[in-house]
Amino acid sequence: MATSRLLRPANNCLRRLHHRPYSSASPSTPQTSPFAPRHLLSIADLTPAELTKLVLNASAHKQAIKSGSGTPFSLRDALQGKTIAMPFTKRSTRTRVSTEAAVALMNGHPMFLGSQDIQLGVNESLYDTSVVISSMVSAIVARVNAHEDVAGLAKHSSVPVINALSDAFHPLQTIADYLTMHEAFPSTQTSSNHSSLGLEGLKIAWVGDANNVLYDLAIGAAKLGVQMAVATPKGYEIPASFRETITSSSSSTMLSETNVPEEAVKNADIIVTDTWVSMGQEEEKARRMRDFAGFQVTAELAKRGGAKEGWKFMHCLPRHPEEVSDEVFHAPNSLVFQEAENRLWAAVATLEGFVVNQGKIV
Amino acid sequence: MATSRLLRPANNCLRRLHHRPYSSASPSTPQTSPFAPRHLLSIADLTPAELTKLVLNASAHKQAIKSGSGTPFSLRDALQGKTIAMPFTKRSTRTRVSTEAAVALMNGHPMFLGSQDIQLGVNESLYDTSVVISSMVSAIVARVNAHEDVAGLAKHSSVPVINALSDAFHPLQTIADYLTMHEAFPSTQTSSNHSSLGLEGLKIAWVGDANNVLYDLAIGAAKLGVQMAVATPKGYEIPASFRETITSSSSSTMLSETNVPEEAVKNADIIVTDTWVSMGQEEEKARRMRDFAGFQVTAELAKRGGAKEGWKFMHCLPRHPEEVSDEVFHAPNSLVFQEAENRLWAAVATLEGFVVNQGKIV
Amino acid sequence: MATSRLLRPANNCLRRLHHRPYSSASPSTPQTSPFAPRHLLSIADLTPAELTKLVLNASAHKQAIKSGSGTPFSLRDALQGKTIAMPFTKRSTRTRVSTEAAVALMNGHPMFLGSQDIQLGVNESLYDTSVVISSMVSAIVARVNAHEDVAGLAKHSSVPVINALSDAFHPLQTIADYLTMHEAFPSTQTSSNHSSLGLEGLKIAWVGDANNVLYDLAIGAAKLGVQMAVATPKGYEIPASFRETITSSSSSTMLSETNVPEEAVKNADIIVTDTWVSMGQEEEKARRMRDFAGFQVTAELAKRGGAKEGWKFMHCLPRHPEEVSDEVFHAPNSLVFQEAENRLWAAVATLEGFVVNQGKIV
Repeated sequence: MATSRLLRPANNCLRRLHHRPYSSASPSTPQTSPFAPRHLLSIADLTPAELTKLVLNASAHKQAIKSGSGTPFSLRDALQGKTIAMPFTKRSTRTRVSTEAAVALMNGHPMFLGSQDIQLGVNESLYDTSVVISSMVSAIVARVNAHEDVAGLAKHSSVPVINALSDAFHPLQTIADYLTMHEAFPSTQTSSNHSSLGLEGLKIAWVGDANNVLYDLAIGAAKLGVQMAVATPKGYEIPASFRETITSSSSSTMLSETNVPEEAVKNADIIVTDTWVSMGQEEEKARRMRDFAGFQVTAELAKRGGAKEGWKFMHCLPRHPEEVSDEVFHAPNSLVFQEAENRLWAAVATLEGFVVNQGKIV
Repeated sequence: MATSRLLRPANNCLRRLHHRPYSSASPSTPQTSPFAPRHLLSIADLTPAELTKLVLNASAHKQAIKSGSGTPFSLRDALQGKTIAMPFTKRSTRTRVSTEAAVALMNGHPMFLGSQDIQLGVNESLYDTSVVISSMVSAIVARVNAHEDVAGLAKHSSVPVINALSDAFHPLQTIADYLTMHEAFPSTQTSSNHSSLGLEGLKIAWVGDANNVLYDLAIGAAKLGVQMAVATPKGYEIPASFRETITSSSSSTMLSETNVPEEAVKNADIIVTDTWVSMGQEEEKARRMRDFAGFQVTAELAKRGGAKEGWKFMHCLPRHPEEVSDEVFHAPNSLVFQEAENRLWAAVATLEGFVVNQGKIV
Repeated sequence: MATSRLLRPANNCLRRLHHRPYSSASPSTPQTSPFAPRHLLSIADLTPAELTKLVLNASAHKQAIKSGSGTPFSLRDALQGKTIAMPFTKRSTRTRVSTEAAVALMNGHPMFLGSQDIQLGVNESLYDTSVVISSMVSAIVARVNAHEDVAGLAKHSSVPVINALSDAFHPLQTIADYLTMHEAFPSTQTSSNHSSLGLEGLKIAWVGDANNVLYDLAIGAAKLGVQMAVATPKGYEIPASFRETITSSSSSTMLSETNVPEEAVKNADIIVTDTWVSMGQEEEKARRMRDFAGFQVTAELAKRGGAKEGWKFMHCLPRHPEEVSDEVFHAPNSLVFQEAENRLWAAVATLEGFVVNQGKIV
């Protein structure tokens, strides 16, 4: 693989719409709790064992509630009386619905704060906002543009901050994705001692743009022993800083990169893509559509590249027709709606680990 | 009655503000639940016995909570841990407050999704939205513009969908309206076996525009044995398709139509109207004000037409002065605020029947 | 002190953005409850004993929940099944978060209604809105522009109305402020019989603009035996009507006024300020910045004026650099974040008194 390596920002990184007169510089006397909370900003914050446990916990809660089997849901009142603040800079249906439903499952109060309700860093400093809000709630689940915003909230918050999507990372999506693979590939599970998801040796092919969803998925792959092949057009490769985070997550090489989609899908168990044109990138849509020609996930591409028999398709939604054909999207081996539902169970397990159990993922 | 019959859309049907690039066409492998849920899109979905039972249940819950009598409220935790999604395309105070308060009464979480939060069919297909949201929540209560939107949600949803107002129907208003009449005309109740509301033989006069509120009210009238006389200006009559739905709801003729308000109110027990100019129709307001001249509900009109002694006035609100005089609106025989409060109890009974009891109205 | 006394509206009183076609005139047959609820529109609505008790209750609940000591939180299910409507005409982070979190602590449902959701007095009369909403919820916590809006809601509501900020008063802020002083000045507490906050003899200096926050703080000072010195620029003094309300709250003279900041801070235990330029006043910002020159709260001002050793700084937030220096704002004797958190406990005590206990502050 020989492509130009451009040290550029994540291509999902949007122009800031509002000027930000206040810096988030910390004052001399930070008002944070003496017992600093643990935050989840990226899958990189988790050990392999913790990521595994979060997925297994998500699976167990899903079964407890959906199967109606003997096991009762253990978190029924785990958030009673507690408010989870949800500052969302951008609209995000799945993220919002899954988070609110997860909080409600535990009898907590999800407090959605849209861009009409709060503008991080605009009317007051991020420091002030973080200290004040965290003094009144039990956790903050934030969906922001710039990752520095959620990082800034976490820096000053006295309660756990969960990154519910930034331009750099999307950990809740990754947890949902590995839960989906755990469900889709049960035959590879060799251990029943709850220390493994049984995904070692699988190969994920990412075909499309390098973005926040990819970064955390690839970090997770490295932690779980999953091979990850990434095909992006020239000029759209993973930025060096993110590559380093990914490759440093494992002692062995789990990540390969190419500009040829067929190379990536060769022997793939799962093919994943995401939109090529995110919110805010509409003006450059025409250029992107040209640059991504040949990157649409189709049955022909999978066949031509040599994906494994019965390969699965995943997509975090919302989907646009340019990045995946109708045939693939709606085929029986498409996991997209199961994957979407799993956002709910990922949120339940994450709130359990970071809020209910205060950062102990057990 | 001899008026021109124009097959035209419901005159509350608004121009769509957003283009809709995605079709809601179902794919080949629908992801709906094997046990398809039951939806409430119109009063036409109910048998006469079910409509009767919903009203009686609403009445019983109202008494249990308001009277403080011995009967405890049976639904105190009926929705604990459950999220009810509320996608609302248009602002709607009564519908929103009554739905949220009803869900809260049962300890559930109402998740309001305004037009800032979600745009049905815009960023992704109605199919995808319906499948995804319904996989995370326990019910969807939707307030839409085009009825096809709530019908589309219902078609693909794995959980019950309640129509909280579309351009075609308004079933929750109708249930509240018959609860209000049930309370206002106790003397006509002849049976105590809970199989009748005792409204048979009453006459409702609708004076004004033919709209969504009227259609479900008239369908309900047909099911409950209530006479319904409708006076609209020429050119504003009930569209043929809706008339057919109404008249097919009963074996006998419960519906009469006229262009003369005095004819409709003759011997009426209840006079009902609604706004002549709905949201989105402001530009044609001047024309409508001319066309509806003489249709304002006044004490003089009621007297001139020969309404029954002690006739009641109803209006689903918000009210505008052109369609009803201050005198009538604020008179002791005006039921408008009781009717508004009954939206709450209608929502409670509907959620009980369609969500808690999964479509069994018992 | 000799300044021109202009009978002018509170300078936080904003131009109304929407025309208001409906009057809120009460009709002839008001539909209010026979047992009229008690509202909290201003600290003036409270006796000294009640204000004291609200602060002490807030303090007790804070300790019960935060300390994890033996005392259980007595209000755990006090609002179960109950909806608290929150019509907010203007954005207000602290007020919203504290109110929602307080309602959630008591297991109730806070129903936030932003300016996108409801416009008081625009689509229907304030009378209709108040009667309808109050028939479905357990209380209304309103954040409005014109005080007449929250007063109008209260006039017709069948449930308690809490003023969560109007252009005239801000009672929840005042309760939080006296809780903060009660915590910061424990040494002055001489009684343990829960009939006093022990603040008698303290001196508060308000340096800045005369506004809603000041009015209720000064009324509270008069009721609690706290000295209050107010320094405003010429032309920005307390309007006569508000001064009368303040001075009539106590038999002795607790209020002094000046145009010289140094005079106000002399011997002050606490220095308080607020923004000089409220939302909606941006266009007159330049003029105000000139007029308020010399009114920034700084260490030098405090020293020059002779504030007491260890004087405390308070500010209701959000803060702007012009009204207070970074040094003061972030100093160890700045109580601003404790004060912000106390908004939560003030809301808990207020909801307890006015909603749970129906106006009995015990």
